[in-house]
Amino acid sequence: MAKEIKELTSRSENYSQWYNDLVIKADLAENSAVRGCMVIKPYGYAIWEKIQRQLDDMFKETGHVNAYFPLFIPKSFLSKEADHVEGFAKECAVVTHYRLKNDPDGKGVVVDPEAKLEEELIVRPTSETIIWNTYRNWIQSYRDLPILVNQWANVVRWEMRTRLFLRTAEFLWQEGHTAHATKEEAIEETIKMLHVYADFAEQYMAVPVIKGIKTPSERFAGALDTYCIEALMQDGKALQAGTSHFLGQNFAKAFDVQFLDKEGKREYVWSTSWGVSTRLMGALIMSHSDDNGLVLPPKLAPYQVVIVPIYKNDEGLAAISEKVEQITKELKALGISVKYDNAQNKKPGWKFAEYELKGVPVRLAMGGRDLENGTIEVARRDTLTKETVSVEGIAAYMKDLLEDIQKNIYQKAFDYRAQNTVSVDTYDEFKEKIEKGGFVLAHWDGTPETEELIKEETKATIRCIPLEGDTTPGVDMVTGKPSAQRVVFARAY
Amino acid sequence: MAKEIKELTSRSENYSQWYNDLVIKADLAENSAVRGCMVIKPYGYAIWEKIQRQLDDMFKETGHVNAYFPLFIPKSFLSKEADHVEGFAKECAVVTHYRLKNDPDGKGVVVDPEAKLEEELIVRPTSETIIWNTYRNWIQSYRDLPILVNQWANVVRWEMRTRLFLRTAEFLWQEGHTAHATKEEAIEETIKMLHVYADFAEQYMAVPVIKGIKTPSERFAGALDTYCIEALMQDGKALQAGTSHFLGQNFAKAFDVQFLDKEGKREYVWSTSWGVSTRLMGALIMSHSDDNGLVLPPKLAPYQVVIVPIYKNDEGLAAISEKVEQITKELKALGISVKYDNAQNKKPGWKFAEYELKGVPVRLAMGGRDLENGTIEVARRDTLTKETVSVEGIAAYMKDLLEDIQKNIYQKAFDYRAQNTVSVDTYDEFKEKIEKGGFVLAHWDGTPETEELIKEETKATIRCIPLEGDTTPGVDMVTGKPSAQRVVFARAY
Repeated sequence: MAKEIKELTSRSENYSQWYNDLVIKADLAENSAVRGCMVIKPYGYAIWEKIQRQLDDMFKETGHVNAYFPLFIPKSFLSKEADHVEGFAKECAVVTHYRLKNDPDGKGVVVDPEAKLEEELIVRPTSETIIWNTYRNWIQSYRDLPILVNQWANVVRWEMRTRLFLRTAEFLWQEGHTAHATKEEAIEETIKMLHVYADFAEQYMAVPVIKGIKTPSERFAGALDTYCIEALMQDGKALQAGTSHFLGQNFAKAFDVQFLDKEGKREYVWSTSWGVSTRLMGALIMSHSDDNGLVLPPKLAPYQVVIVPIYKNDEGLAAISEKVEQITKELKALGISVKYDNAQNKKPGWKFAEYELKGVPVRLAMGGRDLENGTIEVARRDTLTKETVSVEGIAAYMKDLLEDIQKNIYQKAFDYRAQNTVSVDTYDEFKEKIEKGGFVLAHWDGTPETEELIKEETKATIRCIPLEGDTTPGVDMVTGKPSAQRVVFARAY
Repeated sequence: MAKEIKELTSRSENYSQWYNDLVIKADLAENSAVRGCMVIKPYGYAIWEKIQRQLDDMFKETGHVNAYFPLFIPKSFLSKEADHVEGFAKECAVVTHYRLKNDPDGKGVVVDPEAKLEEELIVRPTSETIIWNTYRNWIQSYRDLPILVNQWANVVRWEMRTRLFLRTAEFLWQEGHTAHATKEEAIEETIKMLHVYADFAEQYMAVPVIKGIKTPSERFAGALDTYCIEALMQDGKALQAGTSHFLGQNFAKAFDVQFLDKEGKREYVWSTSWGVSTRLMGALIMSHSDDNGLVLPPKLAPYQVVIVPIYKNDEGLAAISEKVEQITKELKALGISVKYDNAQNKKPGWKFAEYELKGVPVRLAMGGRDLENGTIEVARRDTLTKETVSVEGIAAYMKDLLEDIQKNIYQKAFDYRAQNTVSVDTYDEFKEKIEKGGFVLAHWDGTPETEELIKEETKATIRCIPLEGDTTPGVDMVTGKPSAQRVVFARAY
């Protein structure tokens, strides 16, 4: 692709524009010809593959297996669980016909009116209904439980206002759907997966998250409890990065899924569902990146190290390339992914800017002088600092450095969040702080009315009732009624 | 899932029923509530994941990267490439609306007539059109080429008669879409990917394949040449297991994708596409399995070894389990995947039948006597033979055995194919041989008329013009006209 050094809008100038610029210019994704549907470009997809692979490993380590269920859901399924259809099923892609034919009036094709489906099909916005309709045949006795299944899939929700990765009509995700013999086990599973998500966010994405429970008005449609992880972006807005739902027996009842327990009694099955999506890409981008471009945590970078040769002629390049080949071998032996960019039609300066934009954690540069001295230049993307080090032992040095970068990126995000999290006791103070962005911890009386009032007046929502931290009771900042503990408010994506 | 020892229909009795029974009873897949769409169950999906992972590695080794394009295609895109729309676009799922609403007459939801799309969207039956519409913006100059992109995705073709894995309305696949500056390079890519498919089929699936070119009437709609790999199933029918298309400049012209070449001249881009799908699962199942169930090649088996303890009481189980833990560790250290089935609510005989049905390559059984003697029973799934060997050195023994099984399964399929491939010179002989099944090599005059006549009279199609083997010219068995070389006929899935 023809590229120039690409200028980004700065974050302070226009954060939203900076994000859009970055997604496009770092070749992560772009809008497609289909309203609200994105094209995930190879570099963006490579990051998503890293996310997928790691999460998939973590799901399997916790006993889950993958399966695949149909893309389409019969329309009638959606109305079987009352809350689910209320909260969910409205904005979606509806398949009504199954054939095109040549346009009798000329060129092109038209929908064949004779190929109308008896019952319309919905492109899955989520798969609880089709999966629970399937589970009915899989579950007869307690011996068939638990079912611990995950699916990697595309889903469609007809969003009116879309933004690359953050909110798109079609997106990629995984959805876990588990079935259990007891309520306790289902709740345990719900919380276990919340912790898996939190661990992944913190240890791999380097994004600190608050674990909590959603208020009833923010729950998943059809859930008894929705657990979530909430992250704070650099503009002070919160982003929900993953949810895990305790569904009780709602879907089992809607689809009549019963089992014989150990005592021979028929019971409805207990269930959970949990998911994260390509939205995580948005969280990753907005948590760490700067005005020069992406900053990727080493654990999710498509390549962790890029090596750029600086040479005057073919001979010089050949000599450097020979040395680089040896270094590359050493790096790969330690499990470090590395790209050697010896393209001759681009100047080193162009390459430096390009890899900075693309967030490659470490850039190595080797010139003729380095070759003589047995040195190499090491540039860190996270701190934008440079140093010259000995080629001797470079692989071990890189391994430590990448670990250090991973930690540093997390710490930076952690510090930012700490600096932008405040506790307030009055509504006036709340309004002032919310205006500045960040997480605001405040007391709430537990009613949807107060929640709604605050949302209307300040655009802030309750992100969650946190599972960890201060649980001292108090009084609601608006109504003065008793509050069990502080909850987390923020304006959110 | 509640299970009994499951009886399969035998292959000789009813091959088609045997296949259906096997897919269901080995827990590979089942039909869903949505016409023609299957549910891929965890055991079936685990095999598909192995296929995916290996192919993905091979694509990346040959320089390809993954990306993701929209599920939906604007209806007008389908008519841009004339042959493509003729051959393809008719039987597909059409999205006409984007919203449901509560049924004003009572319960449930109905399609909101006010939410009609201006232009209908087609659920992708294949992605050439949406991808080439995207490539137009990615390609300006020869420096932007080649583009070597692959996509893992679901696609929908509204098939009227469906069979699990072999022909389903929705299926999973990968589709490579590459863009090149020259015709030669595009043809080279087309053939390279054909070889990747053939290597995968033979070395991983243990399925021998014939590599060849499709006749014009069997070409992909929009291709100049379609290359394919063809496998022979145990009932004597052929199965097309993968295709690689040289698309010329057809899609570049349809979507106006031009580039400036090194001389500064504008040219249309050359392209290829290539794909394999969950249909490979059907090929895998039908190539090797027997009347006792699945036979899986070790390289694609979800677990290669299962260990079953045979014990009288808890103490006995504990002693065996301790020994098995050590064996498991040794096996895993050699990269062998192993499952220890110590479930107490199922008898060893039940387990033996279950793992036979599921095609686990090796079953180990250890009883009290074995524990005393330092031995273990080894049962091979492919030959159904048993032997008792020393536990000492069992891991290395297993590694060799699994390699041997992989080779043996391939050899068996290879021998079967050899025994069921004949050359004929007269049409009478052809009709007789075709009736018995297998590949029939015969001379053909190269005309679609003769091809069609043979198809009508014998239900045999030309599977391909083979790339390897006998290229002696001759005369068409029907018309007596000259033939460049023998082609491969068969009845096919």
